[in-house]
Amino acid sequence: MAEDKAGTPASTPGPVTLTVCLTCRRDGADPEAARPGAILHAALEEAGMPEGVALRGVECLSSCKRGCAVALIGGAERWTYVYGDLDPDQHVPEILEGAAAYAGTADGLVPWRQRPQTFRKQSVARIPPAKFFSEE
Amino acid sequence: MAEDKAGTPASTPGPVTLTVCLTCRRDGADPEAARPGAILHAALEEAGMPEGVALRGVECLSSCKRGCAVALIGGAERWTYVYGDLDPDQHVPEILEGAAAYAGTADGLVPWRQRPQTFRKQSVARIPPAKFFSEE
Repeated sequence: MAEDKAGTPASTPGPVTLTVCLTCRRDGADPEAARPGAILHAALEEAGMPEGVALRGVECLSSCKRGCAVALIGGAERWTYVYGDLDPDQHVPEILEGAAAYAGTADGLVPWRQRPQTFRKQSVARIPPAKFFSEE
Repeated sequence: MAEDKAGTPASTPGPVTLTVCLTCRRDGADPEAARPGAILHAALEEAGMPEGVALRGVECLSSCKRGCAVALIGGAERWTYVYGDLDPDQHVPEILEGAAAYAGTADGLVPWRQRPQTFRKQSVARIPPAKFFSEE
């Protein structure tokens, strides 16, 4: 804690947001039906978020070739992760499991074996945190 | 400027980092040779960065299926963008052009027509800025 700002313990590096692309389509989905991204967001909302995780919708994560897509964002000290090729009917439990594990870290780096299978195989990108640059 | 923090004009929302994955491979590249990601980083370093842009290498952006990959990161007020399928021999001028345009924005959103072709076609993901969540 010594290196943290006053009042900010090392174990709480900021809020975590599970950001869901609302505009995502999926191959083979009915173009006239509700967008799969919106369906995924609704399914996650109904399931309820793990402690310390807020759910947010966003118009386009520009991962259109890999939709449905979500991003796990966790403040200036955590890496950001983007996952794609998600299926609202299949992946909600694993997304929640992965989000909970992410929220339990200080830097966003969940040990490989603790990541759900979907997160191991369907990574789209990760982004270094602001802290990464300020330390170099 | 009225809504900005003291001493921070609206036109300078923070430094911009062009982050290059050093570990990226490309399909068909010689596995015994230098990593294409490291070659891209060296080519960008030699070319020189546009004003307001810093070049940084990073070990893996987890966009391995789309390497070479770079991320444009610009502080708490700009969207982050990840681009992939980049070729060190072809794309350096367009990466620099796109980075300069990004650095010229307050929110990271470069108008579509002002984006280089490579950035229009090779987007991997974009991430909303911290400001996006604090305003909702």
